[in-house]
Amino acid sequence: MTLRPLRKPLLPLRLIEFRTREAMSELTHIDEHGLARMVDTSEKPITTRRAIASARVLMSAATVAAIRDHTTPKGDPLETARLAGIVAAKRTAELIPLCHPLPLTHVDVRVELVDEGVHLEAEVTTRAQTGVEMEALTAVSVAALTVYDMCKALDKAMTISDVRLELKTGGKSGDYRRAENRHGTS
Amino acid sequence: MTLRPLRKPLLPLRLIEFRTREAMSELTHIDEHGLARMVDTSEKPITTRRAIASARVLMSAATVAAIRDHTTPKGDPLETARLAGIVAAKRTAELIPLCHPLPLTHVDVRVELVDEGVHLEAEVTTRAQTGVEMEALTAVSVAALTVYDMCKALDKAMTISDVRLELKTGGKSGDYRRAENRHGTS
Amino acid sequence: MTLRPLRKPLLPLRLIEFRTREAMSELTHIDEHGLARMVDTSEKPITTRRAIASARVLMSAATVAAIRDHTTPKGDPLETARLAGIVAAKRTAELIPLCHPLPLTHVDVRVELVDEGVHLEAEVTTRAQTGVEMEALTAVSVAALTVYDMCKALDKAMTISDVRLELKTGGKSGDYRRAENRHGTS
Amino acid sequence: MTLRPLRKPLLPLRLIEFRTREAMSELTHIDEHGLARMVDTSEKPITTRRAIASARVLMSAATVAAIRDHTTPKGDPLETARLAGIVAAKRTAELIPLCHPLPLTHVDVRVELVDEGVHLEAEVTTRAQTGVEMEALTAVSVAALTVYDMCKALDKAMTISDVRLELKTGGKSGDYRRAENRHGTS
Amino acid sequence: MTLRPLRKPLLPLRLIEFRTREAMSELTHIDEHGLARMVDTSEKPITTRRAIASARVLMSAATVAAIRDHTTPKGDPLETARLAGIVAAKRTAELIPLCHPLPLTHVDVRVELVDEGVHLEAEVTTRAQTGVEMEALTAVSVAALTVYDMCKALDKAMTISDVRLELKTGGKSGDYRRAENRHGTS
Amino acid sequence: MTLRPLRKPLLPLRLIEFRTREAMSELTHIDEHGLARMVDTSEKPITTRRAIASARVLMSAATVAAIRDHTTPKGDPLETARLAGIVAAKRTAELIPLCHPLPLTHVDVRVELVDEGVHLEAEVTTRAQTGVEMEALTAVSVAALTVYDMCKALDKAMTISDVRLELKTGGKSGDYRRAENRHGTS
Repeated sequence: MTLRPLRKPLLPLRLIEFRTREAMSELTHIDEHGLARMVDTSEKPITTRRAIASARVLMSAATVAAIRDHTTPKGDPLETARLAGIVAAKRTAELIPLCHPLPLTHVDVRVELVDEGVHLEAEVTTRAQTGVEMEALTAVSVAALTVYDMCKALDKAMTISDVRLELKTGGKSGDYRRAENRHGTS
Repeated sequence: MTLRPLRKPLLPLRLIEFRTREAMSELTHIDEHGLARMVDTSEKPITTRRAIASARVLMSAATVAAIRDHTTPKGDPLETARLAGIVAAKRTAELIPLCHPLPLTHVDVRVELVDEGVHLEAEVTTRAQTGVEMEALTAVSVAALTVYDMCKALDKAMTISDVRLELKTGGKSGDYRRAENRHGTS
Repeated sequence: MTLRPLRKPLLPLRLIEFRTREAMSELTHIDEHGLARMVDTSEKPITTRRAIASARVLMSAATVAAIRDHTTPKGDPLETARLAGIVAAKRTAELIPLCHPLPLTHVDVRVELVDEGVHLEAEVTTRAQTGVEMEALTAVSVAALTVYDMCKALDKAMTISDVRLELKTGGKSGDYRRAENRHGTS
Repeated sequence: MTLRPLRKPLLPLRLIEFRTREAMSELTHIDEHGLARMVDTSEKPITTRRAIASARVLMSAATVAAIRDHTTPKGDPLETARLAGIVAAKRTAELIPLCHPLPLTHVDVRVELVDEGVHLEAEVTTRAQTGVEMEALTAVSVAALTVYDMCKALDKAMTISDVRLELKTGGKSGDYRRAENRHGTS
Repeated sequence: MTLRPLRKPLLPLRLIEFRTREAMSELTHIDEHGLARMVDTSEKPITTRRAIASARVLMSAATVAAIRDHTTPKGDPLETARLAGIVAAKRTAELIPLCHPLPLTHVDVRVELVDEGVHLEAEVTTRAQTGVEMEALTAVSVAALTVYDMCKALDKAMTISDVRLELKTGGKSGDYRRAENRHGTS
Repeated sequence: MTLRPLRKPLLPLRLIEFRTREAMSELTHIDEHGLARMVDTSEKPITTRRAIASARVLMSAATVAAIRDHTTPKGDPLETARLAGIVAAKRTAELIPLCHPLPLTHVDVRVELVDEGVHLEAEVTTRAQTGVEMEALTAVSVAALTVYDMCKALDKAMTISDVRLELKTGGKSGDYRRAENRHGTS
């Protein structure tokens, strides 16, 4: 048992890291690829990044009618959901272990009541070294959960569905726009 | 302009509340039912409450293979997702505006890799005056978002789907078990 | 230099505590009464506690009109403020260093637009070993700050005033109801 | 009932947003101006921003004397309040729904015991795309609430008053300095 | 590819859990014992629990003298450390993934300046279904880190050492008191 | 009793600050150097900063064997500790009162099981106006606490030791590398 490997050779850090991981894999049965790790964005340029995510809350016709008629028991779910989503976007890095904390410059959550339930869309912008896909997805997920919370006394069978990335711009990996029906259920 | 209505008549509180809301509705175009409000659980008995929620992350076969082969770029998504879900359950009341803070006695998140992607299930228990549906749904949602985060370099088209309550026990409103295919997409 | 005082005599804890504090006061120029300390509520009975706090946001007539006419630039400040206050009540123990974390059973925030600005009232309930005055005061303060935030593009001179406890019930120290004009400005 | 409007036309985003809001207003009785929304600061230049806010905690002469004599029951309220205010400034974006998260470069909270109670002043600095008024106001509010918490066993009638912005510099909207007696109570 | 295993057999929950884990272990190379899991405290009785933890911050004689003479550059580290420790105890369940959120009834942090540096002791009490060892250890760790932060401009070689549990009472596993020199360095 | 000193002379701010502190020291027995204060980094240049911290968790041979054999009761402590440390680094500014919130670009936590227990190392990177020593020390401390939590049912005598800064680069104060055996216990 020696401390030396970890102590002395701090200079060639990439070396240590490699060796440590190899050693650990023997001990924990997690091989090198299993270890959770953040992406290092230190050398990436700061650019404007934007992402849009969407989700649906599917519900009974009676629940849709209750939202439309303002008779849901805990108040208006739509505006409350929008606010909950905006606030959640700002806390993404606390919730998603390997996300980077980012100085968001804009968060918007849009909701629409339709016959099948509630459609939600979140749009997040930053100027940073990495993208805001997770912030948009977190916003729309927490907004959808808030809709569930505010209507659950009426309808416990509501289902949150189709939480997905619609658009991503900025960054060197290129822009992304969702094609129809990929892995989707609709 | 008078302060009196809000100041003096603090005794009959339910009265004030009623009157204030009526007054406000004229001002803000939100009628009485529109105001977001927590359920008052002060008089409810403390009982053991349990809830189970589930979700799916749908992904390409190549992404499923990468998880199976431990070649996802940010490490093992499944165990990281489980931990993220457990921690998120404990923070539900911070995220969902009208949730009560509850002393959770157990949180478990279970994940399974299948051909279509990842299935997730969260089970939460407490002894409290209200149920833990939202805690289970939040756990499974944040776990699913974490799977997305850890695989998104491979597959941005992943979709989180079928986030729903499976089971709820405890409390006077009776137990709940999800029936097949209600509002669902599968 | 000796560790002994802190190590060995762990049995008579009150004794250590006393001695340590005395020793420390010589070192830090804070006498025994200066050290911040939580109240120990371990032996107090669990009872229903309720508190109501109020506040005012004073603003120009033009700002009041903008709220009334729904032309404030960041959206409706009143409902947003209500939600922010409810969420803040749940986080009081994180913000106020010596507050106890409490399982709140109800939080309500009421707002009213009057000629001089916005009146706010927060009511908080718990079943716990200590009261919820700070939760009610925190709710009303954060709600008032949110009103400021949403109107500040129109009126930076808005003033939050008269943040105070209106009512407190439960607990052995007896009920409290604010008398008119104590330390107040109105 | 159609999903199409939200799905397909993601390109002209401003268009969608407009249409969605219009649609929603019919459903929720909140018109377009009612929806809470963050300001988009993505295109604003990064400049040094500073803000100073102040507040007063009015209290009985006996409570002032207890602070002066170090006999308040929970320890020195002044230094504890200062620290609570500094920490709260860093969490402003979690508390105030539409605030941007900002990388604060300095927070200072100053307190002074006077005959009428405690005067507080908070000064916050950042280099960012938007100002720090809310951070300064939040710091001074939480510091004032902490004073209340630490003295409330002596004096429940304490009142937090005159929470207001004193100074704001940086940003294209120009500097602001509070004029005497605007909307104020003193 | 089938959803069935996770969907249908919700009744015998312990069964599912067992099977799922077994299945997962094949997929992820983490065997059943590797999966992080909270202890289920739902059936444990509520009793009074207390824990004391201690730590030391070892530092140069010059740094000790600076603390004693009040010349450390960021202000008094001892009282700031006490407050940071008290607040951190309340947030233990957010930081330590498998900890239960507990309604703490008391947190005290004691500090003492000695020749070798700063000795710290945290005492935490609750009435709950599980103990508060982690809360006491977290309090003392964050207090020690705060001492480091406030003195690091003078002495980057400071070392936090001997973070350990001193005493634990309450709960059916029996009381614990640390014996001298177990695994310790002193 | 006059408000004037705090109100009028806002122009020469450094002057006020000085005077206020002097006045306060008479009242609170904390002299000017005692007041906790953040370093103002507003004028510092943004550069790449990196820090590495390390810690050890000393434990019995039986506990080491249990980790090696995957029989610890709450699951694998090593990977859970790594994740807890990564997440904690991102929350440093919430825990350590005078730390600046920083946009971390990378956090890595490395763990190694050795005969005496667990060795931990955290490496944090940012591009900011101040360093990330506290983020690295917080990561490694919370990771070590997590190891304790997950093994404490086996071994309450575990000790966290040698929490210290190994390396710091970036910033005008020059690089730092720990020399052997300074203030240390090994």
